[in-house]
Amino acid sequence: MDGHPSPRSHHPPPERDGSFNNDIESMDGGGGGAWRGAATGGRYESSEALLRYDDEPRQPLLRKRTMNTTSQIAIVGANICPIESLDYEYFTAFLAYAGCNLILAATAAAICAYIAPAAAGSGIPEVKAYLNGVDAYSILAPSTLFVKIFGSILGVSAGFVLGKEGPMVHTGACIANLLGQGGSRKYHLTWNWLRYFKNDRDRRDLITCGSAAGVAAAFRAPVGGVLFALEEAASWWRSALLWRTFFTTAVVAVVLRALIEFCRSGKCGLFGQGGLIMFDLSSTIPTYTAQDVVAIIVLGIIGGVFGGLFNFLLDRILRAYSIINERGPPFKILLTITISIITSACSYGLPWLAPCTPCPVDAPEECPTIGRSGNFKNFQCPPGHYNGLASLFFNTNDDAIRNLFSSGTEKEFHMSTLFVFFTAIYCLGLVTYGIAVPSGLFIPVILAGATYGRIVGTLLGPISDLDPGLFALLGAASFLGGTMRMTVSVCVILLELTNDLHMLPLVMLVLLISKTIADSFNKGVYDQIVVMKGLPFMEAHAEPFMRHLVAGDVVSGPLISFSGVEKVGNIVHALRITGHNGFPVVDEPPVSEAPELVGLVLRSHLLVLLKGKNFMKEKVKTSGSFVLRRFGAFEFAKPGSGKGLKIEDLDFTDDELEMYVDLHPITNTSPYTVVETMSLAKAAVLFRALGLRHLLVVPKTPGRPPIVGILTRHDFMHEHIHGLFPNLGKSH
Amino acid sequence: MDGHPSPRSHHPPPERDGSFNNDIESMDGGGGGAWRGAATGGRYESSEALLRYDDEPRQPLLRKRTMNTTSQIAIVGANICPIESLDYEYFTAFLAYAGCNLILAATAAAICAYIAPAAAGSGIPEVKAYLNGVDAYSILAPSTLFVKIFGSILGVSAGFVLGKEGPMVHTGACIANLLGQGGSRKYHLTWNWLRYFKNDRDRRDLITCGSAAGVAAAFRAPVGGVLFALEEAASWWRSALLWRTFFTTAVVAVVLRALIEFCRSGKCGLFGQGGLIMFDLSSTIPTYTAQDVVAIIVLGIIGGVFGGLFNFLLDRILRAYSIINERGPPFKILLTITISIITSACSYGLPWLAPCTPCPVDAPEECPTIGRSGNFKNFQCPPGHYNGLASLFFNTNDDAIRNLFSSGTEKEFHMSTLFVFFTAIYCLGLVTYGIAVPSGLFIPVILAGATYGRIVGTLLGPISDLDPGLFALLGAASFLGGTMRMTVSVCVILLELTNDLHMLPLVMLVLLISKTIADSFNKGVYDQIVVMKGLPFMEAHAEPFMRHLVAGDVVSGPLISFSGVEKVGNIVHALRITGHNGFPVVDEPPVSEAPELVGLVLRSHLLVLLKGKNFMKEKVKTSGSFVLRRFGAFEFAKPGSGKGLKIEDLDFTDDELEMYVDLHPITNTSPYTVVETMSLAKAAVLFRALGLRHLLVVPKTPGRPPIVGILTRHDFMHEHIHGLFPNLGKSH
Repeated sequence: MDGHPSPRSHHPPPERDGSFNNDIESMDGGGGGAWRGAATGGRYESSEALLRYDDEPRQPLLRKRTMNTTSQIAIVGANICPIESLDYEYFTAFLAYAGCNLILAATAAAICAYIAPAAAGSGIPEVKAYLNGVDAYSILAPSTLFVKIFGSILGVSAGFVLGKEGPMVHTGACIANLLGQGGSRKYHLTWNWLRYFKNDRDRRDLITCGSAAGVAAAFRAPVGGVLFALEEAASWWRSALLWRTFFTTAVVAVVLRALIEFCRSGKCGLFGQGGLIMFDLSSTIPTYTAQDVVAIIVLGIIGGVFGGLFNFLLDRILRAYSIINERGPPFKILLTITISIITSACSYGLPWLAPCTPCPVDAPEECPTIGRSGNFKNFQCPPGHYNGLASLFFNTNDDAIRNLFSSGTEKEFHMSTLFVFFTAIYCLGLVTYGIAVPSGLFIPVILAGATYGRIVGTLLGPISDLDPGLFALLGAASFLGGTMRMTVSVCVILLELTNDLHMLPLVMLVLLISKTIADSFNKGVYDQIVVMKGLPFMEAHAEPFMRHLVAGDVVSGPLISFSGVEKVGNIVHALRITGHNGFPVVDEPPVSEAPELVGLVLRSHLLVLLKGKNFMKEKVKTSGSFVLRRFGAFEFAKPGSGKGLKIEDLDFTDDELEMYVDLHPITNTSPYTVVETMSLAKAAVLFRALGLRHLLVVPKTPGRPPIVGILTRHDFMHEHIHGLFPNLGKSH
Repeated sequence: MDGHPSPRSHHPPPERDGSFNNDIESMDGGGGGAWRGAATGGRYESSEALLRYDDEPRQPLLRKRTMNTTSQIAIVGANICPIESLDYEYFTAFLAYAGCNLILAATAAAICAYIAPAAAGSGIPEVKAYLNGVDAYSILAPSTLFVKIFGSILGVSAGFVLGKEGPMVHTGACIANLLGQGGSRKYHLTWNWLRYFKNDRDRRDLITCGSAAGVAAAFRAPVGGVLFALEEAASWWRSALLWRTFFTTAVVAVVLRALIEFCRSGKCGLFGQGGLIMFDLSSTIPTYTAQDVVAIIVLGIIGGVFGGLFNFLLDRILRAYSIINERGPPFKILLTITISIITSACSYGLPWLAPCTPCPVDAPEECPTIGRSGNFKNFQCPPGHYNGLASLFFNTNDDAIRNLFSSGTEKEFHMSTLFVFFTAIYCLGLVTYGIAVPSGLFIPVILAGATYGRIVGTLLGPISDLDPGLFALLGAASFLGGTMRMTVSVCVILLELTNDLHMLPLVMLVLLISKTIADSFNKGVYDQIVVMKGLPFMEAHAEPFMRHLVAGDVVSGPLISFSGVEKVGNIVHALRITGHNGFPVVDEPPVSEAPELVGLVLRSHLLVLLKGKNFMKEKVKTSGSFVLRRFGAFEFAKPGSGKGLKIEDLDFTDDELEMYVDLHPITNTSPYTVVETMSLAKAAVLFRALGLRHLLVVPKTPGRPPIVGILTRHDFMHEHIHGLFPNLGKSH
């Protein structure tokens, strides 16, 4: 990355010594620390994600000058005006840094835009929607998985202000979905046990477990993973699911523990740093006074406001971006490149604003840090000094957070440094989410929150004795509460990240306050994104306007129903002209005495039956035994996503189309029904609580056709209902 | 308690010195340590619960000898056979000890048996049933609350092997119920905001919060409280509820923290010991090997077996006890007294079996412990020695657990000590639960499990390097997993009790294993008690046999329905002869064209309407506006438990009985309905998922009365269905 592929010795080249004494160059000290700062910044951003650790001695970038002797400007600069020459070289370094970032960013955007657009962003809203019952094929497709993994690695490497936690949740869900598809019968890759996932509920459970595993792996927080799955991801919850997610995250914890043990000697790069507890703060046992609690309440209130503002601005920016992104993949890549350049410029340019700070005498680690991730980046500062902003920007996200959370470091970061970093991260976090790169929100929010907390801690130093590191933790909690609106899971995740149980009451207090404040402005960030993406998400509670409607009001479109013994042609026609997934079956006088609702038949089951071609010449009810003889239960099982039969795949002769088929054996004879006069709100509660896909509406009075219509998820959506009743909002 | 009310000096009486040199008496050392051991054991058992700490100097019990000079045996013993004299005095001490315990136990049993029998036992099964929808008045009545609080204090003081955690959950739920009743309008004690709890759902939420607060307070584990409420207590869960319980436990945590701060100087007795973390183990950072993991898997398996066995034996013992308890309060008290005597005998007698151990040289605290709760009880041992069993028996439960969990204390307890203590606690825990005293199961299970873990840890010492204290923690986890079958909540509670995040993967592993093992034997202990108590608990899943029945099969009894405009006399008669809480309302030809189901009317609403006496002379449908004019919404709100109107309270003249009343305004016109041919399993899922109390069954074909019957909770119960279809289990 720094243009010096061959390992060289650490001795500075002779032509540098002496000639540049006492000029700004000498500040560089033992080997081009400033350049290395920039270079390691970029380098470790990538190596963190690639889990690679390169210990080879680094060649100072200023060596380049010896090769630049032909450049007049360089020579002039070197002899007469070293600042100018450095400007030139710093510019070259910036180009190298920004260029590397740009290439990584463009690659990430390209695979994302061309292979799997669904992989962009956090993925948590999509998983949330899937678990709510929105079965969009691309959300958890294998291509999405591929792009999510590599796009996330590239995106983190490119130095963006984004996290890998959200993408890891999505990755976990995708892997779970792959397992849940039960392999492929086409390639004889079906295992017997995988058939257990051939139904919606177990597959949903598996994907919930996958998302829990993602959080557990990302934060090394197994209990936090369970709670995240419960609080944020899952729409339905059962105690069996609690046990299953717990099992999953326990396995994650054991595997993680074994991997960390294996990597203890540093052979896996930065992986495993910090052990199971990423930011261990357990050494600090705070005693806090009423004054501290007041300070923390203020922190929570302002944090809630910032969190709500973050959601508001993010919504606006995403809406603006969607106009650009809709114009096609090239525009997506262009947008990503723009943001990459802005990010590089900020992270490279802003540290120049920061003052050089002398290294603390009793620093727990090497200062300035050379050749590895950690505290105290030298950047442009003289030896024995460090640049606070560079220490935050040119670092892995984990190390930056660790620096902010660290205790006993009141003086480590200047107030101005924290202000600049906070503003930069808050804004970059906002503009980065929404580009065509897998990007999580946890890290930007934690980073911004921790910086905010440290600012408040420093400002309130006179009235509060709490450590700024603890304030940083509480600030992060307030931002998380203010944007994501999770409570228990954030609380446990922070606990598992910091191992600081003594702070628990304060963290809970801050979360309560910031969530309450932010809830009065807008919805949680993931809910907001779900709405913005237009995913038909069913809320747990019915909307108030539904109380003014009855189920019969919103049943839309002409109803297509089948007879118990139906002509094949009618079925094929119905399947071809509509996209409905369920059809009511009604027995009529030749078969029954009066028109009578038999039940509901699913499109997928109809297709299997049609494919079997067990048709009859006459319209008579059969015993149904042929279905049992002819088909195994697994044939009707839910296929893997996108692998189902299609009506276009089936061909029928004209003779066959004139024949009949008995639908009774494949009809669900106990569908849930509501009376047409039932309050729509109650129907919505029923639909949501039972996780239905179809709800039959039956007439109140006899003497009419036995079925009024079918309610599906879309019929409960705000847009649909307001399309039918435009004046609803006004009249009530 | 020890018969010496006046404070005296610590100097041994002169007549003891010299004359008893070199006999067993001299082992007593500096002031009757053995007696004091026994006395402090009993004394602190009580003072722990009463939150009183008495620092006045204790008078050695052997002083009693000086007052016993008239007793020939004592004199003989003192001069010739000191052992016999000691036997005599030890026996007196036993009488004092057992007597005090007995009085406390009998008092607890008396208030429990006579005032509130529902307060006996843990209370968690009852709260669980209440939250499932079993609305038995006595479960959360104020009298139950009173007995629960004081009975629990007396029970813990009496030295029983029982915990205060379950009772605290019940106490929290009772207090929540009191708040949820919204005061009393009778005594003008209604606050306006309390009216928000005048419906079933919010009241249920409040009680869930109360149970979470109980766990949070008992274990000082706020997050554990939330998870307990989620995993064990609540039957329905919504994200709003998560947020509410979190709010509750956050307040508990902040209040607890403030109280502990206030009590830091010891002015609240033993309360606040250990700060927010009761058994802090955070200093030990274990590194464990594959061998250790194998050892822990073995520990988990055996722990699961012991846990399952505990549940099995508990069930048998409870069934045996119920025969005794059913004979009346005196028998309950007698049973309690018997168990109290057995407990006293065990805790007093068994320490004699233990060898005296020399105090460790580098003991972190005073050894032997004199005059306060803690490690190293002297009992009958010579000075500088301690009795391991006495250290466990004559201690508060908290301190006994702390001793077992303590690390770096491999040699503190002999193997024989641990075996005896384990057997005693396991058996006493079994026989204690079920007596007429509020008694929790957490403490006996944690105590037995920790002892078991220490035994395994000591046995496996040669192959595992883990500390026996950590094994004790894992042993406790395995027993909790094996009996209570909770996973996430036990995991978090243990984490919050010990602050040992590094052990989390191992704790999860142990819980997984022990729960899996024990689940293959029987149900969790609370579920088992719910079944044994005959509470109509609705399981989340439908029973398999329900798939073979339809809803119409189990509708029982003659259906009583009302017309839309019904004669007052008919309503009064129906309310008098049945206990039904809901009645279908059917419009018939004069009012509607054909018989038509209007909806469901509740008994409580009917009573309010009848009390208003807005009757009509003729059978005509009204506009319903009179109800809005005449009644406020709060009149129909759910009253506090047991405070509702009764039909017996209302008087009607014969004229009134002949009049009509329009039921339309108070009829729920959107009741949930199922068709009579719907699978009972699906009806059960609907009933349970929506938390219904009445489910109307309507006919499949028209031309029949528009309602077949009403399903209530009892119709889904195993016993009811098997009563209707005795051959069900056999035929399928």
